[in-house]
Amino acid sequence: MSEKRTELSSLGEFGLIGRLAENIELKHESSVKGIGDDAAVIDQGNHYALLSSDMLVEGVHFDLSYAPIQHLGYKSIAVNVSDIAAMNGVPEQIVISLGLSNRFGLEAVEALYKGMNAAAKDFNVDIVGGDTTASKAGLIISIAVHGKVNKDKVVYRSGGGNNDILCATGDLGGAFIGLQVLEREKQTFLANPNMQPKLDDYQYVVQRQLKPKARMDVIHELNELRVIPTSMIDISDGLASEVMHLSDHSGHGFAVYEEQLPIDRETYNTAVEFNLDPITAALNGGEDYELLFTIDQKDHDKLKNHPDIHFIGHAQPKEKGNVLITKKGNQVELKAQGWNHLSD
Amino acid sequence: MSEKRTELSSLGEFGLIGRLAENIELKHESSVKGIGDDAAVIDQGNHYALLSSDMLVEGVHFDLSYAPIQHLGYKSIAVNVSDIAAMNGVPEQIVISLGLSNRFGLEAVEALYKGMNAAAKDFNVDIVGGDTTASKAGLIISIAVHGKVNKDKVVYRSGGGNNDILCATGDLGGAFIGLQVLEREKQTFLANPNMQPKLDDYQYVVQRQLKPKARMDVIHELNELRVIPTSMIDISDGLASEVMHLSDHSGHGFAVYEEQLPIDRETYNTAVEFNLDPITAALNGGEDYELLFTIDQKDHDKLKNHPDIHFIGHAQPKEKGNVLITKKGNQVELKAQGWNHLSD
Repeated sequence: MSEKRTELSSLGEFGLIGRLAENIELKHESSVKGIGDDAAVIDQGNHYALLSSDMLVEGVHFDLSYAPIQHLGYKSIAVNVSDIAAMNGVPEQIVISLGLSNRFGLEAVEALYKGMNAAAKDFNVDIVGGDTTASKAGLIISIAVHGKVNKDKVVYRSGGGNNDILCATGDLGGAFIGLQVLEREKQTFLANPNMQPKLDDYQYVVQRQLKPKARMDVIHELNELRVIPTSMIDISDGLASEVMHLSDHSGHGFAVYEEQLPIDRETYNTAVEFNLDPITAALNGGEDYELLFTIDQKDHDKLKNHPDIHFIGHAQPKEKGNVLITKKGNQVELKAQGWNHLSD
Repeated sequence: MSEKRTELSSLGEFGLIGRLAENIELKHESSVKGIGDDAAVIDQGNHYALLSSDMLVEGVHFDLSYAPIQHLGYKSIAVNVSDIAAMNGVPEQIVISLGLSNRFGLEAVEALYKGMNAAAKDFNVDIVGGDTTASKAGLIISIAVHGKVNKDKVVYRSGGGNNDILCATGDLGGAFIGLQVLEREKQTFLANPNMQPKLDDYQYVVQRQLKPKARMDVIHELNELRVIPTSMIDISDGLASEVMHLSDHSGHGFAVYEEQLPIDRETYNTAVEFNLDPITAALNGGEDYELLFTIDQKDHDKLKNHPDIHFIGHAQPKEKGNVLITKKGNQVELKAQGWNHLSD
């Protein structure tokens, strides 16, 4: 008698979540939106509360041989805040659960918290609790973030009309290219521990990997400009993967223009140095924690001069699919090659 | 040049949390209560929201060689709900972050979620989101729970007046004794894999360990009886440890009467079989997830006939300390020997 066993890698993370979500029913009237967006939406009477959580596991999400633990603390908060930003909300409180192996002394934990406190200050969020425990396997950081949003300003993945403009903030692919630089330096160091890492020429991309920002600045600017995106998601798994999510939730397809993809010069040059295609890095790199959103065409003029918001494409009827329009005018089907940790 | 290293075990979990909390400041007016109670308290206008998180790590908090994964799912929700109960609140939403090693197939994750869904039903809470990722080290379950409480009904560890009555729900020590039974059967099995586990005579204590209940039933009954505890905490680390917490937060001492400690007959008999003192198991066992609270003497009559609420002692001036009054009338200083995972 053998028990049936289905490998998780055959489903992938999103397949697994979809499977588990099938059996979940929401009983509370206050549970406005459950699994399936960047954060859950909870009715609090005068406003919505937002709730989201993210776990970072050593050896899966980070490598302490090159990630300074203080930056890791910062990043762990930023990636959570990014989920609240993606709902057009503002984070207010976080709780932090830490699993610590005996490799870590007080000084390491204090350095981690120094980064967490810096991020809490940058993103104006209060650390209000959590749990600290032992771990048999390195460092585990699990954070839940609680935020709020006006009921008439909440933005889901599912909104968005036909012909809406697709926008991306900042630049893309840098975090992935930064990871390549760090991995190379690690291999060089392992081969010859006397070698000093050469990171001077790669400061921007390395920073993108180690200490990403959540784009709360953009959320506040959109609010000031009185622009409410019609749909939004944060770019954690790569642009292509996030475009597919918006497509799945909204029922639209999207056309993305290669020539409009925002790629930093250092990202571009370093990608070329590594024999990587900068466009592929921008489409599939992941971990940039920028925002991807759609706006109604009437809001075009309000954002057209914003230096950090780029019009990269537009919504189109579902049957036209999700495509990249190359510089030569060819259409290539967009494929999500997001980081699938479960298939490692 | 060597870096300073302070072992976490020299501080313990509570020492570490206290140290980290020193550098944290709360900026939001809505952050009513941060680190230092069973849950954070967040002002939502008409009511308070409650937010808490707990992480369970394989090899530290559970052993899948005897914990059925479905029960583990149930327990992971119950221990989080218990933190909301301890604030006199009601849980409404939870988010679940899972770290899964490749040992786990879909069937195992579905069994885990079956237990989670059963607990969500029992405690009337909605699973609204989370995160699923890989883990290099077994199973990690990190849950954050969001609840609510009327502003005039929230209960902290810090309330409570002199001469208040100290109450405990249910019975104590069972979860710890159940763990001893399971550990013994595991050793027997490892020595002879053909042996069948003998658990028939230990069903209650084993259930206390594997599938504890959060005492939401008591919270609802207190509400119906119009009793608001003056202070409260859940009993996760053992009664003595929790009494010390109430004492630290309230500025009172407590007298606990040995003869009033609620101990189930099976717990008692099994403790004796294992050459363990049932009183020590009740005081220091941990993981019972019962509630410990104080009430004003005027509420005595409302609760005196409640079959599952036990008057186990009373508050007293700080200088009288925290003591156990033995059956012979001797006073013994209470010492917290809570489970300190960090000193493993």
